[in-house]
Amino acid sequence: MNLNFKTNIPALVDGILKGDRVRLGRAITLIESTKPAHQEMAQQIIEKCLPHSGNSIRLGVTGTPGVGKSTFIESLGSFLVEKGEKVAVLAIDPSSQVSRGSILGDKTRMEKLSNHPSAFIRPSPAGETLGGVARKTRETIILCEAAGFNKIFVETVGVGQSEIAVHSMVDFFLLLLLPGAGDELQGIKRGIVEMADGVVINKSEEERMELAKKAKRSYKNALHLFPLKKSGWSTDVILASGLHGTGIETVWEMIASYETFTKENHYFIKRRNEQASYWLSETIKTGLESSFFKNEKIKAALEKVEKEVLESKRSPFEAAEYLLKLFLNRY
Amino acid sequence: MNLNFKTNIPALVDGILKGDRVRLGRAITLIESTKPAHQEMAQQIIEKCLPHSGNSIRLGVTGTPGVGKSTFIESLGSFLVEKGEKVAVLAIDPSSQVSRGSILGDKTRMEKLSNHPSAFIRPSPAGETLGGVARKTRETIILCEAAGFNKIFVETVGVGQSEIAVHSMVDFFLLLLLPGAGDELQGIKRGIVEMADGVVINKSEEERMELAKKAKRSYKNALHLFPLKKSGWSTDVILASGLHGTGIETVWEMIASYETFTKENHYFIKRRNEQASYWLSETIKTGLESSFFKNEKIKAALEKVEKEVLESKRSPFEAAEYLLKLFLNRY
Repeated sequence: MNLNFKTNIPALVDGILKGDRVRLGRAITLIESTKPAHQEMAQQIIEKCLPHSGNSIRLGVTGTPGVGKSTFIESLGSFLVEKGEKVAVLAIDPSSQVSRGSILGDKTRMEKLSNHPSAFIRPSPAGETLGGVARKTRETIILCEAAGFNKIFVETVGVGQSEIAVHSMVDFFLLLLLPGAGDELQGIKRGIVEMADGVVINKSEEERMELAKKAKRSYKNALHLFPLKKSGWSTDVILASGLHGTGIETVWEMIASYETFTKENHYFIKRRNEQASYWLSETIKTGLESSFFKNEKIKAALEKVEKEVLESKRSPFEAAEYLLKLFLNRY
Repeated sequence: MNLNFKTNIPALVDGILKGDRVRLGRAITLIESTKPAHQEMAQQIIEKCLPHSGNSIRLGVTGTPGVGKSTFIESLGSFLVEKGEKVAVLAIDPSSQVSRGSILGDKTRMEKLSNHPSAFIRPSPAGETLGGVARKTRETIILCEAAGFNKIFVETVGVGQSEIAVHSMVDFFLLLLLPGAGDELQGIKRGIVEMADGVVINKSEEERMELAKKAKRSYKNALHLFPLKKSGWSTDVILASGLHGTGIETVWEMIASYETFTKENHYFIKRRNEQASYWLSETIKTGLESSFFKNEKIKAALEKVEKEVLESKRSPFEAAEYLLKLFLNRY
């Protein structure tokens, strides 16, 4: 990337605040870069965008591969841009670290939405760790909001850790399922169902309507067994088809009701504050561990100490304390 | 406690290695003490006992209150001491931090076993945190093994975090359930059922035999749905009565088969090594966070920085990095 960007930080920020998608894209490239100089610029841009961020609803969308997430998001996103909203679609895909972007990476996907002037679509950054990808996505949300995008989608796959990361950066967490008798729940961890603020049975099309209705009843029953959510909100199950656009308006009404409901009972801001605290403390924890294991004295001592622990020559507790003192320069 | 213990460390260690229960108890009191001088002595004793530890089977026992854990352990423990084994019973009870020991705290419990010369029973230490209690219990296991106890029971209640701690220090994890149609599973987190290497339907007495058999079938079916365990072992369900002593021998045969099976496929030593690594890395993590939050510079800065994050004046990531640099003396 051209390092002349450095002189253009005010221009980039200015462009972002005016909603310029090209400059927004360039700034996100800086966020995604691993070069320290780019990172420094990215932090300056984020700092300047922060006061203009937050005025949006952030939507997490998850579901196993094949459930039709992209088609569903394209359908809901198109519905929203036609209503005059500004839609950004981001993704967290841990597998993209290997396959370089299975989510949103295919340029033919979301073609209609991506060509709309009120939409901005960005594939998952290829970071080294889930934590790294999550951080970059959360920073990208700030820039998108500063650029005036007020409906932010974060897409992920139903594999566990990435859902937790997405859940901790969105206001509403939507789980997509397929029509069927509940067997699909086997493939989805129960914890993910518990996190959902809304469930959509996607691909509820005519030929699958009976199965879809049965699935709806069975999920509604299952959801009743979970404890009441901290938000006070009861998770609903909606039949929809991303392909045909049916049920999309109902899904949006549910999300809009949730926004009103949680803004009235102040859970909306409470959840955002908890998320900010979570990322603060998570980043501290990760940073502490990373500086510990990168420390030269620790690197020199660790292998021997681990061996002694495994051979019952040292207790793991005493060994840990020895290493901690070494790290904190007390030896 | 008398600080003259200091001069008696070799005598304490010598006593422990000879199986002297009084000296073993005194050394455990040092482990449980929060005084730095006692802690230092405890670490010296542990270090000397470590080479003599490990030659045992460590058994975790869990189940909701009322399932009859103490009666069951007394029954199985008595069976073992009569066979010539040496039995130690420890406990991890997070609630004891408030109530000062509901588990094993009642002296009238396990009366028969506690009077046997080959048994050693120790209530849950009253530590400040689960982490602290877990560490003290794990250190106590080392001392008990050095004293020749070869069947180590660690009892806990079915509430979540404490099970994970116990699971990470035992070779075999036993879940006690009550006769019934599976409804009890509601009260027990699914993760705990998945951790179990064996399930016992306790209180399977004549008047409840039909219910007990039904429960056994329903749990066996449920267990089939879980993925195969890393040990290669299939969790079995056994009907037993701690009160009448029925099924106790069958339970022991299951545990003994597990020991043989996992020693042959080398999972036994693999799990112990993983546990040692787990406690090493957990203690490092906890220690890093604790020194961070106790640091004077962090204490002085944290409140202001947190406020700035919540007011969107700083990003949580940038704020975390600022605090980390402060901690690591880079400002």
